[in-house]
Parts: sequence; C-alpha cells; structure tokens
Amino acid sequence: MRFTAAERAAMADALALSEAVRGTTSPNPPVGAVVLDAEGHRVGAGATRPPGGPHAEVVALRAAGTRARGGTAVVTLEPCAHHGRTPPCTGALLDAGVAAVRFAVADPTAQAAGGADVLRDAGVDVAGGLLAEEAAAGPLRAWLHHARTGRPHVTWKYAATLDGRVAAADGTSRWISGPGSRAEVHAIRAAADAVVVGTGTVRADDPWLTVRGPGGEPAGRQPLRVVVGTGEVPGGARVLDDAAETLLVRTHDPAEVLARLAERDAVDVLLEGGPTLAGAFVRAGLVDRIVAYVAPALLGAGPAALGPAGVSTITEIHRWRVEGVTMSGEDVRISAVPAGSEGGS
Amino acid sequence: MRFTAAERAAMADALALSEAVRGTTSPNPPVGAVVLDAEGHRVGAGATRPPGGPHAEVVALRAAGTRARGGTAVVTLEPCAHHGRTPPCTGALLDAGVAAVRFAVADPTAQAAGGADVLRDAGVDVAGGLLAEEAAAGPLRAWLHHARTGRPHVTWKYAATLDGRVAAADGTSRWISGPGSRAEVHAIRAAADAVVVGTGTVRADDPWLTVRGPGGEPAGRQPLRVVVGTGEVPGGARVLDDAAETLLVRTHDPAEVLARLAERDAVDVLLEGGPTLAGAFVRAGLVDRIVAYVAPALLGAGPAALGPAGVSTITEIHRWRVEGVTMSGEDVRISAVPAGSEGGS
Repeated sequence: MRFTAAERAAMADALALSEAVRGTTSPNPPVGAVVLDAEGHRVGAGATRPPGGPHAEVVALRAAGTRARGGTAVVTLEPCAHHGRTPPCTGALLDAGVAAVRFAVADPTAQAAGGADVLRDAGVDVAGGLLAEEAAAGPLRAWLHHARTGRPHVTWKYAATLDGRVAAADGTSRWISGPGSRAEVHAIRAAADAVVVGTGTVRADDPWLTVRGPGGEPAGRQPLRVVVGTGEVPGGARVLDDAAETLLVRTHDPAEVLARLAERDAVDVLLEGGPTLAGAFVRAGLVDRIVAYVAPALLGAGPAALGPAGVSTITEIHRWRVEGVTMSGEDVRISAVPAGSEGGS
Repeated sequence: MRFTAAERAAMADALALSEAVRGTTSPNPPVGAVVLDAEGHRVGAGATRPPGGPHAEVVALRAAGTRARGGTAVVTLEPCAHHGRTPPCTGALLDAGVAAVRFAVADPTAQAAGGADVLRDAGVDVAGGLLAEEAAAGPLRAWLHHARTGRPHVTWKYAATLDGRVAAADGTSRWISGPGSRAEVHAIRAAADAVVVGTGTVRADDPWLTVRGPGGEPAGRQPLRVVVGTGEVPGGARVLDDAAETLLVRTHDPAEVLARLAERDAVDVLLEGGPTLAGAFVRAGLVDRIVAYVAPALLGAGPAALGPAGVSTITEIHRWRVEGVTMSGEDVRISAVPAGSEGGS
C-alpha cells in the first residue's frame, strides 16, 4: 500500500470535516484537511471557511503551528497553486515545512491545478488518490461536476408512495413521507446552495423552503430559494418571507435556470419541484442525481412524481443506475445517477 | 440456550428443504425435516411430498432408517397428530424411536394440532420455537395465513419505474425491469399455487403467465393461471394455451375470487394484475404482501402501478411497513406488509 494507516484515518477525518461544511463554501470546494506531525500524530485539522476566508489547509496548519514541520498534510483536494481571494495553499504548506502531502482528488480546474507539481518541485513527498472515490462521490461531488461541466450539480429530491404518487386525488399531500425522511431533507437542504421549485408547487403547497431544526426553528444559514416558471406567485406566499433570500426565474427552460444559478455562484442545487418542473429537467438531461424517498403507502390516484419528460414509448425510457439504497425511518431512500455516468460526476 | 448448535443447523437445513417445495404441497404445508442420530449426526432429511404423498417427517425417517432410534427429529412445523390422507406423523416418529423432537412453529389448525402433547405423553423430549420467526415469515407464511384466516395469502407483485409507472404513454412496457428481476419473478411464480391477472392485462400484454427457465422453456409444474373480470378474453390469448390450466373468474369482487381459489386448494396466490385489479384488491384489504421491483428508470407519463383503491384524500392513505429491501439485478426489490401486521401473517 502506498498510504499508511495513519494517513488513511486522517483522510477519513478530513472527508468528514469537508462534508460538514458543504453548502457554506461555494463557489469554492468544501475541503477538509488534517495535519500529522513527524511521528504521525494528529496536530491540526480544518475545513474550508466561507468565501474570502482561509482554505482548509491553512486552517489546519494554523492549528498545528510549528508541529507541522516535518509532518504530513492530508487534504481531500489537491492543494491550490493559484492566488485567488486568498494566497495559494502550496505556499502555506511550504512555509509550514511539511515533509509530505497526501490528497484524495486532483484539482481539475485550469487556474488552480498544478499544486502537486509545485510541491514536488520544492522537495515535498506528494501522493494523490487516497480515498479518491469517497471524496469524488461524496463531499466534492457537486463541485467537481461544476468544475468539469461549467454548470451546477442538480439533485432531484422527491417523496412518493410505492405507487409513485406525490399527493392524493384531491391534491392533499401532508405527510406522505415519515418524520425520519423529513428531517433528512432539511439536512440535504442545508448542504445545498439553492433549492428550486416551480410556481405550481408554490401555489399548491406554499412551502417555506427553509432549513429548519427538529423544533421548526430556522437554521442560521439558508440556501437561496428559487422559484421557476411563468405562473403566478401569490404575494403572501411563504417563500417570499424574509427567512431567506428568494430568486424568481421567469422561464420554463432548465438550462436558463442553471445559468442564472451559476451566476449566483450556486454549485450544488436541490430540485424540489413538482412533477412538471422535474419533467422539464429530466427531459433536458439536467438532473445529475435522484434522491427518492419511497414511502410504504398506496394512494391509487393523484399526481405522479414525474410529469411529461419527453417519453412517448418504452424505447425512449430514461435509464438510471441505483447508487445506494437505505432506510430513512420507515421510508426507502433510493439514490440514482444517469445510467452510464461515473460515480461522483 | 434451549437448542444445541446441531439442532439449529439442522433447522436451517429443514427450512431450506421446505422452501424448495413451496408451490407443490398445497393445501398441505411445505415442511422440511432433518433427522439427527443419537450422536447428533445428520442421518436423514426430507420435505413434504405433493398431496397424497408422505409428509416431511416420514420422508426423513425413511432415509434415516434404524439410525433414527434415540436421535432427534428437527421439523419446521409441529408434527401432525391426525389421520388425513396419510397416517399421523406422531405415530411415525414414535415407531422410529426418536428420543427428541424440535420444531419451529406450532400447528394452529384444529384437526392437526396437539402433536407435541402426543409425543410428550409418549416420553419424547419435545421443544418448539426453534427459528420460529424464520419459518413463519418464510416458507410457512402463506400456509399459516390460510390456516388462521381461511383465505389464501395474496402477494401483489409489480414492476414499475422510479416514478411509479408500469408502461409508457402508448402502453408499451417491455422491459421496464431488468433480466435479474424477470428471472426472480419466474421463481416467485414457481412457488405460488395460482397466478392472477385481470382481463385488461390479458388484452394489453397477452402474457403466458407460465413458469419458464432462463432459455424460455416451461417448467414441469405450473401454477394455476387465473383471469379475473368481466371483460373480453380473446380466443387466441396465450393464457388459454395448453401449457398450464387456466381458470376464468367472471367477477370484479376480490373476495369472490379468493373464495373460488380456496375451493381449488390454493393457499399462496400471486397477484400480477394491472392497476385496476390491484386497486380492487388493495381497496378490499386483500393484499397481504407487496413485492415491488422498482426499476431505476423514468417515464413521466403512462399508467401507474396502482389504480383507484378507495383513497380520495391523504388521510385515507393505505399505510404499509417495509419488510425488506434488496437489489435484484439493477432493480430495487421492496417487500412490504400492511402497517400493524405481524411478520409472517
């Protein structure tokens, strides 16, 4: 093995740190870093601070102080070599005198890549690929997707019955999924940069779209709320309250919606729209992941989770690949990605 | 622990034997039996033969011969004490001279129960409850349900997309589920006494409803094919071919259908009907288990898995409980039972 047990354990910790700051760092990647001293003991750890604040390596190196000298920096993403809003992390690592750097995923962006080479040229022992899949499919997924494609990563989240319905025949829908799933949804929202619904959902469900705790209290940081479509938005809609910022995008074109969100530095987008909006995104090929909460319940009538998505006969079916299945309270949580896509893209 | 490791291992084998004969024993229970000699070595094993043939204990005792004397009989169901089409198993066990009997589930039927007491009175060391849950939720599930309620156990099986659809907008549906699920369905059919569809499915899909092997060849034993409803059944329908027997039940009433099937000694019924028939069974509270194959695919239009089931508003939703979730090839297999029901009933 190229990596020591201490390095592996440190990377697992770094991944947890990066996951914890997801939703607070865009357009920067949520990165985690752990510094080991020359004997392999953990002497510092940190994660990317919000934009304008220090990167993960710098936070971890500050915590380690002089104990970093001769040690190893374990980072989820290849340290950047460029001067953006903050100085390059390669400089901070060299200043701290670390002897080795281990990272999970190489930086694919033109302006920040090359950090590994800079460090190597300065005599540092550098190796990448440690827990790379976990990082790419996990905390860095959306950011890597954006770095590669130029558009935000879209997760379509919905809750439906076993027979695929999101509401009863009369339109009532609270609560199809159980309390476990509902709590999980707030955690997913908290890690997103933007939460998107259509005007139809605003009129039908009047959602707040905010991140709330178990007692209903709003979280400190809220994702951007986005209402898409040309339909009416009632003046008293909850989504227009002052609990979080709300963006109205008056179009039905998903590509245009994502372009608007990219302008706002949104990298990780959660689509919570109803059947019509979801159908438009699926048809446009702009859903990168599905997270479905399937409630063990039957309705037999009422709207389906997905509206028209450009399929008129079975050969045109949209094929996906199951990425993970878990229980979420009483519900089955199915995560899927487009068939043929790599994990983490 | 009341049971030895050898007894537990023998019961696990007996359960596998009973599972293997499911679908061939109704109206008798599919039972498995293993005989251990006085030293705990396995000297005989067997499962219930088709009606009129010997019960599992007798098959296993014949294999063991004189080595059963002083040994232990391990049986998935309490040995019967009554003289039906065959002599009571208690007599065979006493004749063989076994010193001990271990069983999983007590016999709940009035005429066959009491076997444990008969054996105890004759000086045999008898204990029940060994792997009882596995037996009750597994191979004996349908038979126990029938013994307790007087009606056949109904499993509703369907394959749908993530958005809950069973066909595209134009009615085409082959293949929504993957080859792994389709092979599994033939195994499920093979273990059923009857396979039920509606006339609508016969006209739409023209299914054979037979058990076929990987090469498409029909299996030796076929479940009864049942077509329900008052709609037309075309004279050339595949379900009317001579590959298996077919029963036409000209009613829309699920209770009447089950009564007709009970007359035919059907204990384990597989409902493969379309949305309309499934809706009628769900509405009548006559579905005992759902086995859903959820394909990672999206259609956005087309019929849903379940038609009208008596629900007009969300408070009337039918609540179920997830019993198991597994992957079946590329599909997610979700097994569920009515909320509040015990496992195995």
